[in-house]
Amino acid sequence: MTQNIYDDPAFFAGYSALRRSIDGLAGAAEWSSLRAMLPAMAGLRVLDLGCGFGWFCRWAQTEGAATVLGVDVSENMLARARETTAAPAITYARADLETFVPDVGAYDLVYSSLALHYIAGLDRLMAAVHAALAPGGHLVFSVEHPIYTAPTSAAWVTSGGKPPIWPLDGYLREGPRRTNWLAEGVIKQHRSIATYVTALLRAGFTLTALDEWGPTTAQVAERPDWAVERDRPPFLLVAARR
Amino acid sequence: MTQNIYDDPAFFAGYSALRRSIDGLAGAAEWSSLRAMLPAMAGLRVLDLGCGFGWFCRWAQTEGAATVLGVDVSENMLARARETTAAPAITYARADLETFVPDVGAYDLVYSSLALHYIAGLDRLMAAVHAALAPGGHLVFSVEHPIYTAPTSAAWVTSGGKPPIWPLDGYLREGPRRTNWLAEGVIKQHRSIATYVTALLRAGFTLTALDEWGPTTAQVAERPDWAVERDRPPFLLVAARR
Repeated sequence: MTQNIYDDPAFFAGYSALRRSIDGLAGAAEWSSLRAMLPAMAGLRVLDLGCGFGWFCRWAQTEGAATVLGVDVSENMLARARETTAAPAITYARADLETFVPDVGAYDLVYSSLALHYIAGLDRLMAAVHAALAPGGHLVFSVEHPIYTAPTSAAWVTSGGKPPIWPLDGYLREGPRRTNWLAEGVIKQHRSIATYVTALLRAGFTLTALDEWGPTTAQVAERPDWAVERDRPPFLLVAARR
Repeated sequence: MTQNIYDDPAFFAGYSALRRSIDGLAGAAEWSSLRAMLPAMAGLRVLDLGCGFGWFCRWAQTEGAATVLGVDVSENMLARARETTAAPAITYARADLETFVPDVGAYDLVYSSLALHYIAGLDRLMAAVHAALAPGGHLVFSVEHPIYTAPTSAAWVTSGGKPPIWPLDGYLREGPRRTNWLAEGVIKQHRSIATYVTALLRAGFTLTALDEWGPTTAQVAERPDWAVERDRPPFLLVAARR
């Protein structure tokens, strides 16, 4: 099953202190780009894979979604979701995305934010998601960008006063990467953009949008330390239709 | 118009000495992957954008294409093509891909190998190519991979006996890159994978395949110096249909 680092107390404490955990969607710099890929929510049956604290579930419900199922592997995350983002149209449930089989034809939108780079069995999950969508249904997801997950040593290198470079290696060597983000030994699954796209096409999806997200000029003006995120995009955003 | 570095004598001499120039398609390591994206050639009307010495045009004709038009901006390349790869079904013509407008609905396959990263007006060209294809027609192309074209200093960095790293920066800063490949001051147009894919989708294409090409295990066994090409893929291969 998934490593479930979110139930590690140190990791959970660190994660809970992130701006996106405290401020919800408004605290996620890529949210406006991801939102632009979404269909109108009114009347939709929505599934959120890796729902975390449920910020997206609550937003979807507020925007008029008929039903929202948020699933997550972490009991900590689900407990916080039930405390802070509960609503009658929303159901929270525990599920491991390595084995989860959503109901067939039961959804109009499957959404996932920064969860799929923890999953080894992407092809299995994409086939299950395709089957779970009604014809014409939407899949919209974000993951850590493959350029971000690839390197042996994923940290900016500066030398001699020169601008920082991102020390890329291993881009085509797909598989687990052990990192120390918030806690030691967090395992992510590195795969290329082509592998994400091919998994979608193989499952029967039509690709409708691809965004290698970096901060806008306005965001960099507000947060000058984000300028390097345009040198190495942090997130990959993808939209597809069944 | 395009820089047309191929008519620079030093560049042309260097290019002519490359294995892919001497051995044709068999000398291009990515050819078998690109070939796998192509439809059967029998009876097709084929357009090759940036045909070079015409190796692909001759192959398409040998495989049964009905007609093949190869266009290139370089007189040197076209002269060599007419000398070495001429055939009754093949026409070679000079065209600048920044302004070229192929006949509407006149082709079943548009192909381009390692030419589009020289072109600034990608959206214009993609719209023209879409219009030039019959419904159901195929577009298959390769370009230098955006990870390859992005950096300020596009050369492997080694230090202290450690494995080489690729010094990535500027990935989201699209636009011209001046390089010294074969000759000084060769201008390439850097753009992200998302920009290539978005140009296709915006023109009305459906994406059918995406490959971030690196050498196979067998190719690395034969050419151990190619191992680093799996750390930073050199080519992006794309297939789409109208």
